[in-house]
Amino acid sequence: MKKPKIKTMEELSVAIGVSRPTLSRYFQSPDSVRGSTAKKIQLGLERVEYVPNFFATRLNRKSTGMIGVIIPYLNDLFFTKLLESIEMAAMDAGYTVITQCSHSDRAIEARAAETFMSMNVDGTLVVPLGNRSDLVVHQRLQSRLPFVLVDSRPATMLEVDFVGTDHKQSTGLITKYLCRVGKPPIFLAMPRVNFNAMEREKAYMDCITALGHKPVVIGTDLVEDQWYFEAHGEAVLNDFFARGQFTDRSILCVNDRVAIGALRAASRHGLVPGRGAKGGLRIAGHDDYPLCPFTTPALTTVAQDFEAIGKAAVSRLIEVINNEDTDDTPRIQLFDGVLKLRESA
Amino acid sequence: MKKPKIKTMEELSVAIGVSRPTLSRYFQSPDSVRGSTAKKIQLGLERVEYVPNFFATRLNRKSTGMIGVIIPYLNDLFFTKLLESIEMAAMDAGYTVITQCSHSDRAIEARAAETFMSMNVDGTLVVPLGNRSDLVVHQRLQSRLPFVLVDSRPATMLEVDFVGTDHKQSTGLITKYLCRVGKPPIFLAMPRVNFNAMEREKAYMDCITALGHKPVVIGTDLVEDQWYFEAHGEAVLNDFFARGQFTDRSILCVNDRVAIGALRAASRHGLVPGRGAKGGLRIAGHDDYPLCPFTTPALTTVAQDFEAIGKAAVSRLIEVINNEDTDDTPRIQLFDGVLKLRESA
Repeated sequence: MKKPKIKTMEELSVAIGVSRPTLSRYFQSPDSVRGSTAKKIQLGLERVEYVPNFFATRLNRKSTGMIGVIIPYLNDLFFTKLLESIEMAAMDAGYTVITQCSHSDRAIEARAAETFMSMNVDGTLVVPLGNRSDLVVHQRLQSRLPFVLVDSRPATMLEVDFVGTDHKQSTGLITKYLCRVGKPPIFLAMPRVNFNAMEREKAYMDCITALGHKPVVIGTDLVEDQWYFEAHGEAVLNDFFARGQFTDRSILCVNDRVAIGALRAASRHGLVPGRGAKGGLRIAGHDDYPLCPFTTPALTTVAQDFEAIGKAAVSRLIEVINNEDTDDTPRIQLFDGVLKLRESA
Repeated sequence: MKKPKIKTMEELSVAIGVSRPTLSRYFQSPDSVRGSTAKKIQLGLERVEYVPNFFATRLNRKSTGMIGVIIPYLNDLFFTKLLESIEMAAMDAGYTVITQCSHSDRAIEARAAETFMSMNVDGTLVVPLGNRSDLVVHQRLQSRLPFVLVDSRPATMLEVDFVGTDHKQSTGLITKYLCRVGKPPIFLAMPRVNFNAMEREKAYMDCITALGHKPVVIGTDLVEDQWYFEAHGEAVLNDFFARGQFTDRSILCVNDRVAIGALRAASRHGLVPGRGAKGGLRIAGHDDYPLCPFTTPALTTVAQDFEAIGKAAVSRLIEVINNEDTDDTPRIQLFDGVLKLRESA
């Protein structure tokens, strides 16, 4: 038997036999009506096809129950892992997550911020695009809504709540490991458009210098479309390998996607990086991209704790939304990286 | 100089010197007020810090301007490519996309459908979880809102607008190619929980039988967590290779992620699939996952046209939203796959 379709609260009030204001109170908070009335409404709702309007039931509350999330691009399993962890944590806390992706575009990122402000979301978690972000937009968003930066932060926004990885620790950890097992690594970087990439490059320089070695950084010039990391890693190393350079070195890549391209360049030149490699070529990455165990050879890297970062970001945001933190100092939470030793180094 | 912060339409009306009803009309449609008044409002808005409420400005319109999208999981570049194409097309058409991910969970998928109904989105694009989906929920969603299925469809929803790949054509194409260049392929499948996987398995059986060969399907039993495709492909082939089986065969994998696992199994056994391979091992996939050019060896596959599928889905949904299609027959749009010859087969 098909249930009758109810479209408005007025129709619903007639169908159930409860006054319109009582019905409204029930949808805003079921505990605000008498127990017998609540029961009557529940039974009535089961007999009809009706969906209460998300916004109407929240119109008189202070909260929309929504958290807005901005991520820079979609086709990167690093961001999808982070987003998954954010969505699960927010769902557990009873929030609906609305995600807007910047698609590498400054104007789209700005529009996403506008959308969240106009939707009156309870708070926002923002992973900025990098130095192409319109920082004025982020500052405006931050001044209007509870706001936590995640994963990466501009030098001009160091006084804002932030959750991410301690790149000095994580990059230092793998740099020291590579120095222990072979020749001191060179650093395969990327164009300096991404705050984390710049932090890792600096962490490498500091660490390798402190260990008494000469830093060597390659790949800071744009070879291919800058966000296509694998193609960048392959193109840069391919040039060096073709000239016979670096075929016996340890190569630390700025992230695992660049390292996947680097592995591909090695394979094109008949080189197999890893412990037993002839000549001593080693390749390592950063992040623990989900595909690392399946590359040939499997990629040695330093893992970011996606899960902990996502959870901590949601939990901090909810604290700010609920005004639970009376202290005005920004809360900076940095998580350590963990070595993942596989075959490539 | 900091702009004064305006919170309500009343405050804004005073600040700009235009009546409240005129302001409302302007936000619902700028053309509905006189040109000189529109100009006055525009200049006024530039002098203050004000964001019109997304829902309030849409309250008297029939449309919320939102499209709801459900995808089954996030950590898969196939779905992120598809989602990117949907978001770009929807944005071009002036819609805001709200995406909810099912995270492989039937209850979360059902909740996403409820959210879209309660938000009164203008229409929904749904990529179902597979045979774990609660089909009653999808049917209810479809009866309430403009609805287009994308990528994969249940056998019970064949009479619904659908946009996806013609798996019979795409799988047939690569099956025939493999038969031309080497031994007839065996099919590395996955547990039968995913509609597309089942369609491809059937397409392989039909094609290989028509060509006069005996079909061989492996991997339909669950070895690892069923959605972790790479681990499934590696585990299944690893078992056969360890027994010396199939090391000289062509292996067609149900998708590229399974094929990436298959390549890994080959590499663990010192096998290099490809044209010049000793013994004749070949490995091919389906989809053209973005990482295919970077695997070792680079993966031969048949590409799905993510871009065309996303665009066609949005365009069909908008047609239904605008009642532009007076015909009642469901519109089924299937796109052809295209061979991508690389090294592995």
